[in-house]
Amino acid sequence: MHDKLREHIEKIVPLTDKEFAFVSDHFSYKKYRKHQFLIQEGDTVKYHYFVLSGLLKLVYTDDTAKQHIVSFAMEDWWESDFYAYYTQTPATLSLECVEDTEVLCLLLEDYKKLCDGLQKMERFFLEKANFGFLGAQRRIISWLTSNAKERYEQLLKQSPSLIQRVPKSLLAAYLGVSRETLSRLSP
Amino acid sequence: MHDKLREHIEKIVPLTDKEFAFVSDHFSYKKYRKHQFLIQEGDTVKYHYFVLSGLLKLVYTDDTAKQHIVSFAMEDWWESDFYAYYTQTPATLSLECVEDTEVLCLLLEDYKKLCDGLQKMERFFLEKANFGFLGAQRRIISWLTSNAKERYEQLLKQSPSLIQRVPKSLLAAYLGVSRETLSRLSP
Repeated sequence: MHDKLREHIEKIVPLTDKEFAFVSDHFSYKKYRKHQFLIQEGDTVKYHYFVLSGLLKLVYTDDTAKQHIVSFAMEDWWESDFYAYYTQTPATLSLECVEDTEVLCLLLEDYKKLCDGLQKMERFFLEKANFGFLGAQRRIISWLTSNAKERYEQLLKQSPSLIQRVPKSLLAAYLGVSRETLSRLSP
Repeated sequence: MHDKLREHIEKIVPLTDKEFAFVSDHFSYKKYRKHQFLIQEGDTVKYHYFVLSGLLKLVYTDDTAKQHIVSFAMEDWWESDFYAYYTQTPATLSLECVEDTEVLCLLLEDYKKLCDGLQKMERFFLEKANFGFLGAQRRIISWLTSNAKERYEQLLKQSPSLIQRVPKSLLAAYLGVSRETLSRLSP
């Protein structure tokens, strides 16, 4: 299962076998069932996750207990409540399985050790962070410029497989529309 | 003027005089007047900017020529059309002065030289990228969970100085509301 991680990292930086052994030693494997939580609101966030298989939702729950989907993460994505992780403050988001999910887990201290011990990994995380920022910026532009129908069509174009896998109620909570509105938009 | 850059970087990583001289050598200084463009849509994006003084707006112009503000950047902020900069594709955003503005400019090749030549700078850019991502994520959560009035109040709380400096029409284009709606919200 660590092969997937190596393949993923090597899209950005090549690693020798020795270097990858060093990287791999800092991850631990976990498996979760659908509906299980990796992070619950209020938790101390121990890990930053690399998704090997399955699907996760990162959720913000508002004062009225309504759930808003901040992001989805499937194979090859990294996910966590990153603010809580980096600052070691209680989680304000929850991370929950939409499907049975396998992840590799990275402790904050091990993330730091990887960056300190192997500059290639710092380069890797820098590239991921830069493109993570650009993805979030693209979503902001989509909110500024598009209505619900257009946002749905953009998502359909960008992530067709996500739309196949995710229940309509969760898509609505990601797009910021009601379930009824989404039903009118999607065939 | 490079002192501001040093102070800013040293909030994250300490530098020796020799290291800072190396960093500083990779930046060039430019001054722009209000309404001048640093980047125009369609341009090749040469630089990534550190704002020394003044205020910039990063703008997405839609098919109907309506302007949407993706972000503002003032003192101590980094700004560019980062997608176009990293991928060296034509700019889809424009970057324009809201006030007279002084910047330090960093070429992509110099950004890479800094990261390659001094691991502390790669650490610095990684931290900035991580927190840039978190800022964008916070704005997404704000869009998902808040109405225009609440988004205005959040901005007032987070960036009171921005609200003082930015004309109401630009604030409206940042919050995604009409100028008339904003007038009803703000005293």
